[in-house]
Amino acid sequence: MKKDAKISNAVIKRLPRYRRYLRELQKKGVDKISSREFSRLIGYTASQIRQDLNSFGGFGQQGYGYNVDGLYNEISAILGLDKHYKMVVVGVGNLGRAIANYTSYYKTGFIIDTIFEVSPAIIGNSINGVEVRDYDHIVEYVEENDIDIGIICTPKEVAQEVADKLCFAGVRGIWNFAPVDLEVPDYVALENVHISDSLHALAYHMNKQSKEQGKKDK
Amino acid sequence: MKKDAKISNAVIKRLPRYRRYLRELQKKGVDKISSREFSRLIGYTASQIRQDLNSFGGFGQQGYGYNVDGLYNEISAILGLDKHYKMVVVGVGNLGRAIANYTSYYKTGFIIDTIFEVSPAIIGNSINGVEVRDYDHIVEYVEENDIDIGIICTPKEVAQEVADKLCFAGVRGIWNFAPVDLEVPDYVALENVHISDSLHALAYHMNKQSKEQGKKDK
Repeated sequence: MKKDAKISNAVIKRLPRYRRYLRELQKKGVDKISSREFSRLIGYTASQIRQDLNSFGGFGQQGYGYNVDGLYNEISAILGLDKHYKMVVVGVGNLGRAIANYTSYYKTGFIIDTIFEVSPAIIGNSINGVEVRDYDHIVEYVEENDIDIGIICTPKEVAQEVADKLCFAGVRGIWNFAPVDLEVPDYVALENVHISDSLHALAYHMNKQSKEQGKKDK
Repeated sequence: MKKDAKISNAVIKRLPRYRRYLRELQKKGVDKISSREFSRLIGYTASQIRQDLNSFGGFGQQGYGYNVDGLYNEISAILGLDKHYKMVVVGVGNLGRAIANYTSYYKTGFIIDTIFEVSPAIIGNSINGVEVRDYDHIVEYVEENDIDIGIICTPKEVAQEVADKLCFAGVRGIWNFAPVDLEVPDYVALENVHISDSLHALAYHMNKQSKEQGKKDK
């Protein structure tokens, strides 16, 4: 891998998808794949695939294709999935619960260390084996336990305050599910999951497809 | 709007974000905004904004800026958010519950009509005022009630089968939360929400930022 190669954000967004498909191939015992076969599987063009994978060095061999294990491991390393991350979830609504349970499926080193909540009725319980703690102690806890990532599942009204506390306490990444764009210092990474954006894009594609269908029907 | 203008997928993905920020401006009583001010707010460059909004006709006036209400309404119409959509949720785990509750916040015409589940213990209950029905009756129900969108919140092992039934019964869109890529007919729109992809992208950015921080510290 070219160590300091600048990889575009669009490619970064595709890497997890490449990785998922490579994992499926591994499970099926496939050890090499051509960019053409990979294209059929993943739905990007073969030239897109070659361009993407070349952007960080390329792992293909002419006339051989890609080595599935090698490419999987390299993409995992590029994404930083060869490391472990300690995470805290803030907010125990349905979404917080879903995340707390969902992430247990990840076998990729993302560990939910604890969960913070303001409601006295929930503090002290455990979810998926993880203790729910009092939000009042979030700063000390995150500092003392070297937490890497804060996951914000609170109402949007308090999300910025939660982000401020998490950043102050030293997290390096914020994974935000509150429907609001947060401001964080430059040295903290931020991923916003605006679930409704995806629904709105779906609506667009549905209407576009109806129009195209309408044209064909004429 | 240029009626048949082809809008790139990248622009479509940004439109919901433009729309969210315009809504915030509306709430604050702002009625016009320059691309420069809008750029500061939303975090895209002013030229990106002009290019995006020009791609479907442009709503700015030289020396005046964008009309907030006009642009908001036009983007809503392009996305198809001036219509109503009847949706069903399939699968009542934490994620299904979160979606069933979360979408109630949308004031954009996405209505959860019903929820399907296989577990007898849950069938007949209601979540957020919506009845949970027996998955065995999904095809008839979707057909008879003109459901537009199926939301898949099942384990990944059954997600394709659920998608097949939904498409057979006539939905026009699938919003998929199961961690698997689905195959659907060309005339059905599909949006996959791979939540873990976003976490993996976060890990990448965290590691990149640590490296850059490391360089600065030297």
